[in-house]
Amino acid sequence: MGKKVLVVGGVAGGASVAARVRRLDESAEIIMFERGPYVSFSNCCIPFHISGDIEKSQDLVLMTPPEFDKQYNIDARVYNEVVGINKEEKTVEVKNVQTNETYTESYDVLFLAPGAVALRPQSIEGINDEHVFVMKTVPDVEALTTYAKDNDVKDVTVVGGGYIGLEVAENLKYAGYNVTLVEAQDQVMAPLDYDMVQMINREIMKNDVDLVLGDSVQKIAKDKVILASGREINAQAVVMAIGVRPENTLAKQADLALSASGAIKVNHHYQTSDPNIYAVGDAIETTCFFTGQKTQLTLAGPAQRQARAAADHVYGRTYVNTGVIGSSSVKMFGMNAANTGLNEKQCQARGIDYDYSYVIPKDKVGLMPDAENLFFKLIFQVPSGKILGAQAVGRGNVDKRIDVIATAIMLNGNLEHLKELELTYSPHFSTAKDVVNHAALTALNILNGEVKKVPVTKVRELVESNAMIIDAREEGEYALSHIKGAVNIPLSQFRDRLDEIPKDQPIYVHCRSSQRSYNMVRALGQLGYDHVYNLDGSFLGVCEYEYFNDVVSKREPIVTDYNFN
Amino acid sequence: MGKKVLVVGGVAGGASVAARVRRLDESAEIIMFERGPYVSFSNCCIPFHISGDIEKSQDLVLMTPPEFDKQYNIDARVYNEVVGINKEEKTVEVKNVQTNETYTESYDVLFLAPGAVALRPQSIEGINDEHVFVMKTVPDVEALTTYAKDNDVKDVTVVGGGYIGLEVAENLKYAGYNVTLVEAQDQVMAPLDYDMVQMINREIMKNDVDLVLGDSVQKIAKDKVILASGREINAQAVVMAIGVRPENTLAKQADLALSASGAIKVNHHYQTSDPNIYAVGDAIETTCFFTGQKTQLTLAGPAQRQARAAADHVYGRTYVNTGVIGSSSVKMFGMNAANTGLNEKQCQARGIDYDYSYVIPKDKVGLMPDAENLFFKLIFQVPSGKILGAQAVGRGNVDKRIDVIATAIMLNGNLEHLKELELTYSPHFSTAKDVVNHAALTALNILNGEVKKVPVTKVRELVESNAMIIDAREEGEYALSHIKGAVNIPLSQFRDRLDEIPKDQPIYVHCRSSQRSYNMVRALGQLGYDHVYNLDGSFLGVCEYEYFNDVVSKREPIVTDYNFN
Repeated sequence: MGKKVLVVGGVAGGASVAARVRRLDESAEIIMFERGPYVSFSNCCIPFHISGDIEKSQDLVLMTPPEFDKQYNIDARVYNEVVGINKEEKTVEVKNVQTNETYTESYDVLFLAPGAVALRPQSIEGINDEHVFVMKTVPDVEALTTYAKDNDVKDVTVVGGGYIGLEVAENLKYAGYNVTLVEAQDQVMAPLDYDMVQMINREIMKNDVDLVLGDSVQKIAKDKVILASGREINAQAVVMAIGVRPENTLAKQADLALSASGAIKVNHHYQTSDPNIYAVGDAIETTCFFTGQKTQLTLAGPAQRQARAAADHVYGRTYVNTGVIGSSSVKMFGMNAANTGLNEKQCQARGIDYDYSYVIPKDKVGLMPDAENLFFKLIFQVPSGKILGAQAVGRGNVDKRIDVIATAIMLNGNLEHLKELELTYSPHFSTAKDVVNHAALTALNILNGEVKKVPVTKVRELVESNAMIIDAREEGEYALSHIKGAVNIPLSQFRDRLDEIPKDQPIYVHCRSSQRSYNMVRALGQLGYDHVYNLDGSFLGVCEYEYFNDVVSKREPIVTDYNFN
Repeated sequence: MGKKVLVVGGVAGGASVAARVRRLDESAEIIMFERGPYVSFSNCCIPFHISGDIEKSQDLVLMTPPEFDKQYNIDARVYNEVVGINKEEKTVEVKNVQTNETYTESYDVLFLAPGAVALRPQSIEGINDEHVFVMKTVPDVEALTTYAKDNDVKDVTVVGGGYIGLEVAENLKYAGYNVTLVEAQDQVMAPLDYDMVQMINREIMKNDVDLVLGDSVQKIAKDKVILASGREINAQAVVMAIGVRPENTLAKQADLALSASGAIKVNHHYQTSDPNIYAVGDAIETTCFFTGQKTQLTLAGPAQRQARAAADHVYGRTYVNTGVIGSSSVKMFGMNAANTGLNEKQCQARGIDYDYSYVIPKDKVGLMPDAENLFFKLIFQVPSGKILGAQAVGRGNVDKRIDVIATAIMLNGNLEHLKELELTYSPHFSTAKDVVNHAALTALNILNGEVKKVPVTKVRELVESNAMIIDAREEGEYALSHIKGAVNIPLSQFRDRLDEIPKDQPIYVHCRSSQRSYNMVRALGQLGYDHVYNLDGSFLGVCEYEYFNDVVSKREPIVTDYNFN
């Protein structure tokens, strides 16, 4: 007889551990405990049941206990909650939550994969009412859809603008509800920087979801939500998606070491403070790839890799723990967003010297009918040029570019590597100099001091201070819409109009996407202009960033008029 | 006054050189010669004008000579052919092909970017007839479309199954022609291995293009093409897309060093045998990233990077020449294909010890309505596990996975790196354990000798020799269609049916996609079975590979029945 292996939690981490142990040891006795009704369901797909994209909630369940039994010889026990651990005896106490009976199981090795708990701040009045939902499990989504149908719900408020909040809001909208999305911070999608989420904001509003930023829920009444600002929002149902905390009840009870924020501490083999107890997934503390510091990350990919590594360690297999970089993606109506590594906020918080390039090229050859702008920000370390992170937003293939950056990060790539990457190219998929190469070239210009830039976030200040902004686009483009106060000197004319460009003050140049302005900036630099700045993101970037402000002369043509070269 | 820089050729390489020189040196005098009517057109987009995806042929031209003049201060001379170089005098002789006048221009630096010439084998009778076209330039595509319209062409034969041939065939079909595609080799798309193109073959045929493999054109008559086999194909127009050779007329005339195959030899700064003459793009010999051996590669991405590097060298800028790996992609009707690095044939030709994994996972979470199979082959070095190449075919995002592999290759990644890659995940875009991770895990099992495999190419042999093939799928799946002679022992039953599995002979196990068979193989290995093989690619792979043969019991349900788990 092989080892007796117990697994607490039957979703991503737990199910992966159990299956891996079986492959390593046909003779192991494996029992997997799940307090809920389902094992092995797809958390990440839960929001898509709301719209019917995934028709039946049962489809979210990938494998049933009988299937675990037959295919893997794994005893998967649903409605069985492990309520206590006796580390000395190496036993757990299990409660059947349907019968309330308890029993004891012994173990050689115990794996904890309890996951995370959706936050429900008890300071909010009404937070526990029956029309307030979270969105972590299959019963959670069933409860919402059933309640909404039975109670003829028309208006739903989603609280929290993270990935789950966004996906829930989108799918509620697809299902026909009036949706309000409330986020306490000044931006949705915290993994992205403020400048990169403005396109997402617009997409949310365009699709008729009421987006409320910088306001928080104070009270939930029967038919409405009341915000800190006093604003009241009609809502017969509320979904709380403001985040999660590690599920550490059992670990606490067993006196396992926890981090300050309550995550289960593990060593690099995923052993807890008790070497016979491993922990993986959303409940644990993990290691940041960049800094080696402890961090938390609730993502399915790392959970699966942790599960495999932990099982392997039990069976004496070696494993290099790389730490986590944090890669994720989301679709929001017609807009896709993805990110990897560190963002600006995180670099600042960690005291890492960094800079970034921000480019807006087409995601495929511009002449192809479905080419779209791709907003891309590449963050690198100064002075090494080491890649730290990237963010991409657009209607096309943003995840591809971010996956390339994630790969480069984990293989210690720098800007020189990125600029030379030989990626696949055909006009349907990319450009000969892909977005990633383009961003790296721009970043090298910045790192090497060959081009000075001013970020899109500073344009309003420039306009208000009557700075010398040159619009290098053609006259027809300028006529349609332009930055207020900008002087139109097209790239095609500037060599004959140098007398209009003063040498004794800073010059800020932009075009549509930065290609023409970059050429003008390089030329002016050689012509004795010492203070020339390229406007990062150019007109496209300004239009997105300042869409709701009084910085461009006309707002509407901008959006439809992206195809100027 | 700065340097006087001449550039021969005004497309990808040439235009990039000229623009880069301008950015580096505002004072340079730059003249770009192009013998054709257009500079800076998109070669790669030419096929898409045939279908009208790119409506006007003029849209293929990205920049005109007046725009080069105004925006870059570059003198772009179309219809001007450089017909001679005097290396000692540092001059070129230029012929205006419209007036036949010639003149001389001096240079400080000369760049050659003459590109490649489409092959027209003179051994084929009729090859120079007016209804035989190639597809390299804007006039080429205009000639075809005009001729076809004026002559009421109904049937077109495309000769050559490379990227251009495929794209031309696809776009002719979209435009309503009857299309035959003739390829002399036994497969289209040489960069992919034979087993990986079978899905493409099927897609071509499904879209009603007549695909002729292993036959070549012997004679082109007015209304038909006659093949070596004697077969005659109706064709009022023929497009030759069998490949290219370096355009080396000028280099030869100037006595610059050429390779055996006629490519212009350059050093790692892209200097030819004359240090004042640089050459870039399709005409040159380049270096293989993997072996350091000389090779040729006619792709736009490398051409652009070479152009930049050559210009930089003139201005004393350093550059690390990584060599080329060869990455490309193509869309063929509803199927996408991409590849990078070395394929099996190339590894064999170079004497590199390699192995590969072949997996067919879903390209996104299986429950999402638009999830599709992704056929993925990962080639690695033995014994190092270093990544050598990959090929992907499917209806979804194949280019993303190949770009990740290309990045890993250029950053010297191995299988351990790939398995740990933390890529972006959300159900719309991928799976928590992405295709790339999956392929790496499978490859490590193979490299470490934990799983033995038999390739899909050997299944017919197994069937014919009555080998013991176990189908690990459920009974309902087996009933619909199965490999002839395979015994159905589902993973869910095998532990109770071990007596049906003999220990004294090799056992070959498959399921639908290899997941279940892999679990059975691991278990049998621990239960004392010494000769158990996983059938690489599993039932999906066999169905694709043996679609037209007598190896599976029923052909049709297979194709529509991909959604078994």
